[in-house]
Amino acid sequence: MLTPNAHYAELKDSYLFFNIAQKIKAYLSSHPGERVLRLGIGDVSLPLCKEVIKALHEAVDDQASKETFHGYMPECGAPFLRETIAAHYLKRGVKLSSDEVFVSSGASDELGDILDLFDRSNQALIIEPAYPAYVDASVIAGRKIVHLPSGEENGFLPGPDEKYEADLIYICSPNNPTGAVFDRERLQAWVDHANKTGAVILFDAAYEAFIEDSSIPHSIFELEGARTCAIEICSLSKTAGFTGTRLGYTVIPKDLVRGGMSLNGMWVRNRTTKTNGVSYIIQKGGAAVFTDEGQRQIKENIAFYKNNARVIMRALDEIGVKYFGGRNAPYIWLKCPGETDSWKFFDRLLNEIRVVGTPGAGFGKCGEGWFRLSSFGSPEDTSLAAERIVALFS
Amino acid sequence: MLTPNAHYAELKDSYLFFNIAQKIKAYLSSHPGERVLRLGIGDVSLPLCKEVIKALHEAVDDQASKETFHGYMPECGAPFLRETIAAHYLKRGVKLSSDEVFVSSGASDELGDILDLFDRSNQALIIEPAYPAYVDASVIAGRKIVHLPSGEENGFLPGPDEKYEADLIYICSPNNPTGAVFDRERLQAWVDHANKTGAVILFDAAYEAFIEDSSIPHSIFELEGARTCAIEICSLSKTAGFTGTRLGYTVIPKDLVRGGMSLNGMWVRNRTTKTNGVSYIIQKGGAAVFTDEGQRQIKENIAFYKNNARVIMRALDEIGVKYFGGRNAPYIWLKCPGETDSWKFFDRLLNEIRVVGTPGAGFGKCGEGWFRLSSFGSPEDTSLAAERIVALFS
Repeated sequence: MLTPNAHYAELKDSYLFFNIAQKIKAYLSSHPGERVLRLGIGDVSLPLCKEVIKALHEAVDDQASKETFHGYMPECGAPFLRETIAAHYLKRGVKLSSDEVFVSSGASDELGDILDLFDRSNQALIIEPAYPAYVDASVIAGRKIVHLPSGEENGFLPGPDEKYEADLIYICSPNNPTGAVFDRERLQAWVDHANKTGAVILFDAAYEAFIEDSSIPHSIFELEGARTCAIEICSLSKTAGFTGTRLGYTVIPKDLVRGGMSLNGMWVRNRTTKTNGVSYIIQKGGAAVFTDEGQRQIKENIAFYKNNARVIMRALDEIGVKYFGGRNAPYIWLKCPGETDSWKFFDRLLNEIRVVGTPGAGFGKCGEGWFRLSSFGSPEDTSLAAERIVALFS
Repeated sequence: MLTPNAHYAELKDSYLFFNIAQKIKAYLSSHPGERVLRLGIGDVSLPLCKEVIKALHEAVDDQASKETFHGYMPECGAPFLRETIAAHYLKRGVKLSSDEVFVSSGASDELGDILDLFDRSNQALIIEPAYPAYVDASVIAGRKIVHLPSGEENGFLPGPDEKYEADLIYICSPNNPTGAVFDRERLQAWVDHANKTGAVILFDAAYEAFIEDSSIPHSIFELEGARTCAIEICSLSKTAGFTGTRLGYTVIPKDLVRGGMSLNGMWVRNRTTKTNGVSYIIQKGGAAVFTDEGQRQIKENIAFYKNNARVIMRALDEIGVKYFGGRNAPYIWLKCPGETDSWKFFDRLLNEIRVVGTPGAGFGKCGEGWFRLSSFGSPEDTSLAAERIVALFS
């Protein structure tokens, strides 16, 4: 008799985005003809850049002719893309061998799959507020979770704490949902801690392209000692609008060894067993992101979102509302004015000014009283929402 | 201190295709200017059909413009593709709801990921000779494996046997590597057995498009009782040449319940936690396979490979060599003439007639003495190889 994985029953039902959708639906059905301004969205709204589109069309044409057709791709990634990504890191002073770079279908896929490398007895440290899938993927694997709360007092950037020991440490910087960003010094403290305790850091760098301050590290491998304690998981979703096109990459240094086993070598074995690689067409599209022209074009798109963020920040500054993020991150994490219940704040924004955001309580207990606004919406909606927020709280 | 998943150390080093490549390299370096005929290949050689290419180009164009751009896709698959696949099953008399169809990146990815649904204490039955990844993915998960050997005496199609009990049963039909195909009666015996014991069948239907006899089931869901005991994993890799383009689908019926838990519901939760769906572009290309014109075009490609298979079968018939497969499968599994060691047979074919195949010993102990030839090569190489085999063994 087959026994299902009982850990699924331990998952909390995640009603966050479902609840939001239901509330919008109810509002619109009782207010026909009205329009809500969606600043809850975590998805990009701009199309792929021209350089990527061109590369995708060329790759489709390659698949149309016997002479240029590509069958099975190397499981760990096409050499052309692994080398391109390694060269991109080198521009930032991070020296990687191309076989330390693994091509993936995206960060969310990889964050789940990578857990296969670790023994189930390992505990995972999750800094909260957090992306809910960190918790859920660990629960499915039957892994014990240590929740490290963060808050205003440490700028949502807690340091290592011996009361919260774990074997695996999730760090997302720039952070979703708080927009907080680890500077070199604070991130170095985590690297040193992991090297001291033998923990491994899973560094989620999905939002690194939004960093504008030159002092902030884009990659954990810019720090001393990270090669012996960190795995970096990155994605083109927010960097280049690949949320629906799907491509990411993961860096596992060859110096990362635990229990005498090379995690890089284990991941090679995992990928060659459990995948047949990522689509040739999509990998060609991904490589175009890293050309000079591709970089110029994606930076235009990021500047567009950053302008939305500035519009929101200016509004919050005007009414004196405290917030984090927005500068080096696409999210703005604000302290709900005059309200400690983030769902009540959600209802108020929806009902009074038809603005939709994401209640902080959806990202863990310590997110209560906070609210996430995103810069991925349209500039028109963002400006209108900012005006209405100012008017409501002035 | 992080502990790596120690089960990786239990994996046997899989040198099969590496060894083959080394032997070819050695031969060519001592015989410069010669050319080997590659019938070991498990990859397709024909390009994507026109209908798919057209759909891929259109989907790339959709991603180029704000009005038609697609961001995050539904994690379990785009409704347009889930509905198209359900409609395709209906043509064969299999009634599925579209939310019983999950879109995947391919069968090999899914065969690994799906194990997440089952408790690690569950034993997996693997009918050998077998695709090596079945064994390896179960080893990585720390699952005990029951090896059920098959052979000439049962046509490589063993039935259930109480000496080989397990919770999970892998069945691949048409089979890789043996080309053997379960008829309705033999497959029904496994379905009845699974329903009786509470086991779950993982039915790998990756080669179903090669079935030509109308009495052979393409899907396990053509059989009575399969909805309460089977998961079907399928792929467009061999059906439509998607080995390097990557797309597959998985059917988990809502009637499949174990320990009070719906495996369909668990898989929805798994996908929404651990993925962000499959590329919009690739899903659009996949949907084109199921149009009338797409079906006509892929059948032309399959007929091309089937012609290669017939050329090989005629040669083996001529010299009186026993074989399985070739008729409803892309592989021909032959009994090495005058040899019991499949690696020695490999060496002989390479050195004497410059033909490359795959030694049966690479697919498990009971594959020893057998040899796999593939129909995915070029017609010229296939004909030439057939002639040389006839000349060598006449």
